[in-house]
Amino acid sequence: MSNKITIAVDAMGGDNSPYKVINGINHHFATSKNVFYKIFGDEDIIKKIIPKSLPFSSFELIHTKDHIKGNDSALSAARAKDTSMWLAIDSVKKKDADIIISAGNTGALFVIAKLNLKMIEKIDKPALAGLWPNKNGTNVVLDLGASIDCSEKNLVDFSIMGSALFKALFPTDESKVAILNIGSEEIKGHEIIKKAYELLNTNNNFNFKFNGYIEGNEIMDGTSNVIITDGFTGNVALKTAEGTANFITNELKKTMTSNLIGKFSSLINIKNINKFKKRLDPRLYNGAILLGLDSPVVKSHGSTDYIGFSHSLTLCEKIISGNFIDKIKQTIN
Amino acid sequence: MSNKITIAVDAMGGDNSPYKVINGINHHFATSKNVFYKIFGDEDIIKKIIPKSLPFSSFELIHTKDHIKGNDSALSAARAKDTSMWLAIDSVKKKDADIIISAGNTGALFVIAKLNLKMIEKIDKPALAGLWPNKNGTNVVLDLGASIDCSEKNLVDFSIMGSALFKALFPTDESKVAILNIGSEEIKGHEIIKKAYELLNTNNNFNFKFNGYIEGNEIMDGTSNVIITDGFTGNVALKTAEGTANFITNELKKTMTSNLIGKFSSLINIKNINKFKKRLDPRLYNGAILLGLDSPVVKSHGSTDYIGFSHSLTLCEKIISGNFIDKIKQTIN
Repeated sequence: MSNKITIAVDAMGGDNSPYKVINGINHHFATSKNVFYKIFGDEDIIKKIIPKSLPFSSFELIHTKDHIKGNDSALSAARAKDTSMWLAIDSVKKKDADIIISAGNTGALFVIAKLNLKMIEKIDKPALAGLWPNKNGTNVVLDLGASIDCSEKNLVDFSIMGSALFKALFPTDESKVAILNIGSEEIKGHEIIKKAYELLNTNNNFNFKFNGYIEGNEIMDGTSNVIITDGFTGNVALKTAEGTANFITNELKKTMTSNLIGKFSSLINIKNINKFKKRLDPRLYNGAILLGLDSPVVKSHGSTDYIGFSHSLTLCEKIISGNFIDKIKQTIN
Repeated sequence: MSNKITIAVDAMGGDNSPYKVINGINHHFATSKNVFYKIFGDEDIIKKIIPKSLPFSSFELIHTKDHIKGNDSALSAARAKDTSMWLAIDSVKKKDADIIISAGNTGALFVIAKLNLKMIEKIDKPALAGLWPNKNGTNVVLDLGASIDCSEKNLVDFSIMGSALFKALFPTDESKVAILNIGSEEIKGHEIIKKAYELLNTNNNFNFKFNGYIEGNEIMDGTSNVIITDGFTGNVALKTAEGTANFITNELKKTMTSNLIGKFSSLINIKNINKFKKRLDPRLYNGAILLGLDSPVVKSHGSTDYIGFSHSLTLCEKIISGNFIDKIKQTIN
């Protein structure tokens, strides 16, 4: 293992792989020279498509015979030990890599990761964290679906891990934690949330600010940047936001191009429209992070392209250079 | 009580009341002559502002000495029996009106309604239903926050009530029920949801189609139009959608008017922009309906204007002319 950050990359998961993965690595390498890529996948295909701009010193190609398909069940996937996903995770387990990324089957990734990697001491349940735009920057939101039923202890653990992730990604910003609830008053919400509020509100040893409760419409306000919830609620919130964003942009497209005047004015305003598109480009927020294991596991969206994949490689790099795991352990001990 | 539909209107609740309420009634009356308004509020103010276009035969003004403020606690509000809200609800209890509407304090409205009105037989918990745009029309979504902890029986009841409401509002459309979940497979979600799925899937006596599970990003797809969830999840989903919609339209406004070209092209495209705004105008979806009580209770958004209030009067009218309560009782028995 070199001085560089080593990322174990499952090259075979998601749509249009390994092409988008290899192009994503190449795109990422153009801006970052501090990463060594351990690429797991079918060498017959990958050797042909690795671009010359990627020097041999920047990567290692590990041939894997098999790979997990999108519709494989998590359990059957966990039995196959010669897949690109399994071997990429195994390299993290053996400390040959610092972090693992895959755009493949989410269920399989989580099951294999949990089978191979240890939980961080004193953390009982994993959480899936995602990045979400807000008015002033970016939120970390968790759990997005790893742990459906959560105790107050789990929610406090999520606060510690989410805050550590935020500080690793945005070292100069203060992490401000809030619990997602259905009202801002202390009496609102169910018992587990109220107990978590109590625990977070009375403990002064945390290295984050606790802002209390926020409601769904305040997630993107920017007053808090680490949003805590159980995996069921978080998953519904994330997907509802995605659905709403798609609905609105589709409606906008429909009305803006429904006649000649609309098309013409959109054409002359193309720069602003592109600026708007860029602000909400989901590729900028690509990459969900499974927290709680001894090594972070990054899941790229399966349908993203090489630019999105490259963004999630940057995410991997920041998580390791920001000493994410150490930050969690410091807070817990 | 006349042959017309009688709506008991709390004229004193919400921002800018009673002005917006009286103007809302006047606006509603211009398109509908089938409604009689029982207006509860301060007659000294209301008498001065009732427009001449509203004939005396269309309304009755009942003077009330007091009214509930937005920041009154629900419990203190429930003790004051001479408020416009209490007396409006009381008139429904006495069968002097068919339905009650208020733009005032939500907590107080629900507590007073539950104190005065009986639950429908065999329905254990109330649900708050809202209207939500989808690709093909409108969804009914419930519960939006009335019942935080729900059993499988409650979720089935919500399906029956939500479907009856949908059929009352859109008599020519089929009601298609789906449970909000975090995956479409039968094994996803927590135990209560799975049991509700089982109950809905095996019972053939319901007069709606059961579409199984949907995820948050499918709410606005239009494949289902009655979306069932517990009050905690529903409230988070609704508010997250609101927050996302606000965030996107604000970002759009910012980029589209950030320079002269943007302003100019928006100006020539003003018709399309207004069409877009109208499609998403929250006033069109104004009015949440508390279901489960022997008479429906409609809550208008406190911050809406007279147009939004008028839309929720139309909602009241449709609920009654569509025999909403009878539809529920027929399905249950």
